Amino acid sequence: VESRLPNVGTTIFTVMSRLAQECGAINLSQGFPDFNAEDVLFERVAHWMRTGHNQYAPMAGVAPLREAIARKVSTLYGTAYDPEAEVTVTAGATQALFTAVAALVRPGDEVIVFEPVYDSYAPAIELQGGRVVRMQLAAPDYRPDWGAVAEAITPRTRMIMINSPHNPTATVWTAGDMARLAALTHGTGIVIVSDEVYEHIVFDGLRHESCARHPELAARSLIVSSFGKTYHITGWKVGYVVGPRELMAEFRKVHQFNVFTVNTPVQLALADYMADASRHEGLAAFYQGKRDFFREALAGSRFELLPSSGTYFQLARYGAISDEPDTAFAQRLTRVTGVAAIPVSAFFADGRDERVIRFCFAKNEATLAAACERLQKV
Amino acid sequence: VESRLPNVGTTIFTVMSRLAQECGAINLSQGFPDFNAEDVLFERVAHWMRTGHNQYAPMAGVAPLREAIARKVSTLYGTAYDPEAEVTVTAGATQALFTAVAALVRPGDEVIVFEPVYDSYAPAIELQGGRVVRMQLAAPDYRPDWGAVAEAITPRTRMIMINSPHNPTATVWTAGDMARLAALTHGTGIVIVSDEVYEHIVFDGLRHESCARHPELAARSLIVSSFGKTYHITGWKVGYVVGPRELMAEFRKVHQFNVFTVNTPVQLALADYMADASRHEGLAAFYQGKRDFFREALAGSRFELLPSSGTYFQLARYGAISDEPDTAFAQRLTRVTGVAAIPVSAFFADGRDERVIRFCFAKNEATLAAACERLQKV
Ligand SMILES: CSCCC(=O)C(=O)O
Ligand SMILES: CSCCC(=O)C(=O)O
Repeated sequence: VESRLPNVGTTIFTVMSRLAQECGAINLSQGFPDFNAEDVLFERVAHWMRTGHNQYAPMAGVAPLREAIARKVSTLYGTAYDPEAEVTVTAGATQALFTAVAALVRPGDEVIVFEPVYDSYAPAIELQGGRVVRMQLAAPDYRPDWGAVAEAITPRTRMIMINSPHNPTATVWTAGDMARLAALTHGTGIVIVSDEVYEHIVFDGLRHESCARHPELAARSLIVSSFGKTYHITGWKVGYVVGPRELMAEFRKVHQFNVFTVNTPVQLALADYMADASRHEGLAAFYQGKRDFFREALAGSRFELLPSSGTYFQLARYGAISDEPDTAFAQRLTRVTGVAAIPVSAFFADGRDERVIRFCFAKNEATLAAACERLQKV
Repeated sequence: VESRLPNVGTTIFTVMSRLAQECGAINLSQGFPDFNAEDVLFERVAHWMRTGHNQYAPMAGVAPLREAIARKVSTLYGTAYDPEAEVTVTAGATQALFTAVAALVRPGDEVIVFEPVYDSYAPAIELQGGRVVRMQLAAPDYRPDWGAVAEAITPRTRMIMINSPHNPTATVWTAGDMARLAALTHGTGIVIVSDEVYEHIVFDGLRHESCARHPELAARSLIVSSFGKTYHITGWKVGYVVGPRELMAEFRKVHQFNVFTVNTPVQLALADYMADASRHEGLAAFYQGKRDFFREALAGSRFELLPSSGTYFQLARYGAISDEPDTAFAQRLTRVTGVAAIPVSAFFADGRDERVIRFCFAKNEATLAAACERLQKV
């Protein structure tokens, strides 16, 4: 079979999680918590199943969940979205991103992304015949270079995909970044797709700069988020997208023929759960505590820790330990040391290797402590 | 925004279900049961949630579910699929179909479909730059014309999408049909995508001719099915695809970047539930009973009922009642008579109108009786 994605292998997250399991390693690679969500959420799912809410939800999502999402976004970021026409529930953030690209990128269109870039973006663009234009976020601070972005924009630029808090670098864009983005795209037809799945995980008093805080950007953005990261249910695969009705109409044309709709009792349960607006409020402090615990437990090790300002990831340089390529190092760390991590070269199209690996600290302290004990010996 | 799918509106199933709800009509339009699944299934979901299985499943699905699927397919149809490399769990059958097309159809490729055709097929193909080649299934018997198919096959034919039991016509393809399909595609690189979501709903002693019963076809088919139709959980959005490893490898390249994976506790619960292989055994008799009940309750009405040999749908001609176009008639039936149905013209690209509407009889007898009482008065 001739492949439509000849350069694509199995996603690094699957590869490393599988290796971790085979080796019995502590899995700090793929990003997910090793603690459970709250029982009350499970009880709501069970309630809606038992009472017979197991058939198709409306295509865009159940009304109470769309209303809860619109309420949250408006409260936190100030932009009001119409739940009927401007909010759609998706089978996870990845599906939202894939669908946004499929709905809007035409063959020959250019899409600007920022490298290191989440591994689903480029294949989604290439599958539609789009051209991926890669901006570099350079170590160690991984700041966007807005001058370079200005030069990269052409009449063919259809979309800019952004992601803050940023996976894997754990950096957070500033209000200044958003102002630059707004200025550069002002008066163009460029659509912003903003991956904000770590919106509630921002540290040290920083503020999440959602596109929904910046009206000019919001007017041409599809904003994607995820319940998985916020409520510790990455395996439920529920996310959402908000955006102005013209963009959402195009999104839904594809969404309805891609997954059509999302698990009904889960949607109803999430709507109930969101009714308590405080659910996500403690999340930043919760993960900041884990970040601090993890960094302290690695203090004095031979890993050089880069800053982590958001997400549940921590980058580490290992140059003092080995000059192996990051993939080989991550595999050896998994096999020999018993701790799995993600080689950051997987986020670069050319496999660029800055000798950096990514740890996920969304784990119980006991897990983090056990991992750090092993990592201290490297 | 310039649309990538300028001719696409909102799917007819959403349009009619919404109208039914607005009018308080009995909804026999969109296909879903109005009775509940079994409590034991809900208890299994609750069990896996409570015991902490809420993070990402493996990309292709949890192992026990893939094994249960392979076991079922092999038992019923005789083809053995390797659960590791040849079975993938999807976010519903629609996602499986969309992903199969995205993974295999290149710009300029031709894809043969059979009209009336489920409304997601053509947009999925067109989004990839493929050309939809439409074969006609002509009323009243809706049999495929294999001579016409032979003429339609060209060196550019990449895929043939088939669907038996067939939605909306309720016809079932024969072993002879499968032999013709095998002969016509023998020695070509054509991939069959076989939508078999109604595989367990076949009446009057007919047999479901899965591609997995026909080794030559199975070797180049992606076979799609759905738990929604079989276990009365259309709103859970879980399906699967089986196929030879080379095709599955391409499928997964796209799947991993489209939805990545599917709700974990639901997958584990379905694996438990499938352990009892008898679950689907009564399904054909169950729905045959409903079909007979519905047809008897409509006997003597002015609707002319076409045969229904599988699926949970019943086509009806209304020429004796009205010469309105089917869309207008279906809307009036919803608003005035209080029974919603699907106008079959929605399954034709050119809106061809044979003055036929589709009823769904996956309903409690009380619902069917109430609907038929109203329909008798038309
Ligand atoms: C889709 S699995 C990967 C989860 C994740 O977002 C990550 O580890 O970066
Ligand atoms: C995707 S909603 C439609 C359900 C269905 O398959 C039908 O009614 O034909």
